Amino acid sequence: MNEVTALLKKHTSIRKFTGQPVTDEQLHAIVESAQCASTSSNVQAYSIIRVADEHMKQQLSVLSGNYSYVLECPVFLVWCADLFRLHQAHALHEDAEPAYIGTTEHLIVATVDTALAAQNAAIAAESMGLGIVYIGGIRNHIAEVAKLLQLPKYVYPVFGMCLGYPDQQPGLRPRLPLAAVLHENTYDPERMTRPMEEYDRIIQQYITKRTGGKKTSTWSEDMTAKLKTPARLHMKSFLELQGFGTE
Amino acid sequence: MNEVTALLKKHTSIRKFTGQPVTDEQLHAIVESAQCASTSSNVQAYSIIRVADEHMKQQLSVLSGNYSYVLECPVFLVWCADLFRLHQAHALHEDAEPAYIGTTEHLIVATVDTALAAQNAAIAAESMGLGIVYIGGIRNHIAEVAKLLQLPKYVYPVFGMCLGYPDQQPGLRPRLPLAAVLHENTYDPERMTRPMEEYDRIIQQYITKRTGGKKTSTWSEDMTAKLKTPARLHMKSFLELQGFGTE
Repeated sequence: MNEVTALLKKHTSIRKFTGQPVTDEQLHAIVESAQCASTSSNVQAYSIIRVADEHMKQQLSVLSGNYSYVLECPVFLVWCADLFRLHQAHALHEDAEPAYIGTTEHLIVATVDTALAAQNAAIAAESMGLGIVYIGGIRNHIAEVAKLLQLPKYVYPVFGMCLGYPDQQPGLRPRLPLAAVLHENTYDPERMTRPMEEYDRIIQQYITKRTGGKKTSTWSEDMTAKLKTPARLHMKSFLELQGFGTE
Repeated sequence: MNEVTALLKKHTSIRKFTGQPVTDEQLHAIVESAQCASTSSNVQAYSIIRVADEHMKQQLSVLSGNYSYVLECPVFLVWCADLFRLHQAHALHEDAEPAYIGTTEHLIVATVDTALAAQNAAIAAESMGLGIVYIGGIRNHIAEVAKLLQLPKYVYPVFGMCLGYPDQQPGLRPRLPLAAVLHENTYDPERMTRPMEEYDRIIQQYITKRTGGKKTSTWSEDMTAKLKTPARLHMKSFLELQGFGTE
């Protein structure tokens, strides 16, 4: 294990921050690191919105699930998949609207580009002693968030991210056994069957301890609840309205 | 700039590898690093398939665009968004099929989870002196790839990744100016207008030099071509067939 893999392996999401500010210099170094991630055919199909305005942060905090840390973190970023910039590039050269901007392929490309860049940002931040947490809750009321951030067509908010100096030290959440996620040559559907019971037991112990017994569910129970509960059913129509994945 | 951000900033995709093998120990450390990335509500909705079989690598190489490095790299990984494992977890507790597995929200969650993990893997690999390149070409003939890898429903290949010791030193491709990707409070649609000409000039110089004059197009020209050319139009129907984004 080298210093970098040691850093990766001690990642844990931070939801409580000290008052110490993050400087513009730090933020720029983080964004520059993000930009160095791989990007499909150099499209760089993402934009980052730093929300510094207190009133807007408060609104985003409420819209994302009433998480206090969205409001209280020194830096709140919204990571957007962005094909609008490509649309502008196209407009420089062609009068017609771009014929294939709305393909599901481009939805995937822009979403992946955004995530790769964001993960570089997360690691850069952690290398500076900062902590981060991704905020998927930004999609809870995605249309309102898009309106608040004045997103044009061909831009959608994928997730938020809180950044700041950690004021807590949460434990590391155990992951699935390696054997459950790494397959050889072909996908082995039985690969998870045996490890599931073991992982259920491990995660149950972890979560019971972490929540002081308030939550005692296993991984498979949590996943079952997730798949039988409606959540963010507006995503399909919202994305189509924004011009993503229409074909 | 610290050691980690220095590593991130020197990333460049590697498409030529020495014969030096990557050990199982290295691969496992890379996958363990990948697993430490953030994951939405701990779903860990991805699987990694290491394709070591030479005949399969050859087929994948052809299907992905005839790239020799897919065949020649010491390790080829296919990164899959995976809701099948969640489906199995659900089957432990419920007789009925999971009601909400096919939502577009879950497509986004699984795709993002996969990309975050893969980017951690890329960085872990680079920290060991290895080089990587993402292979979006795996989606060129995605149905054939899925068949070859025996992917069940609720699994789709997002991208491939070649890993190995670099046998080339490509230059760093210049990125968009930071000001073009980082917005303040709201999305500024004018943010790219002025930097575009400048970036077009920079990337044209870079690409002309790198290709010895074989390619001389600007960024905005490349993006224009991308948006007016049909590519991977099968993605929508393929994903729906695999159970992704059906609602």
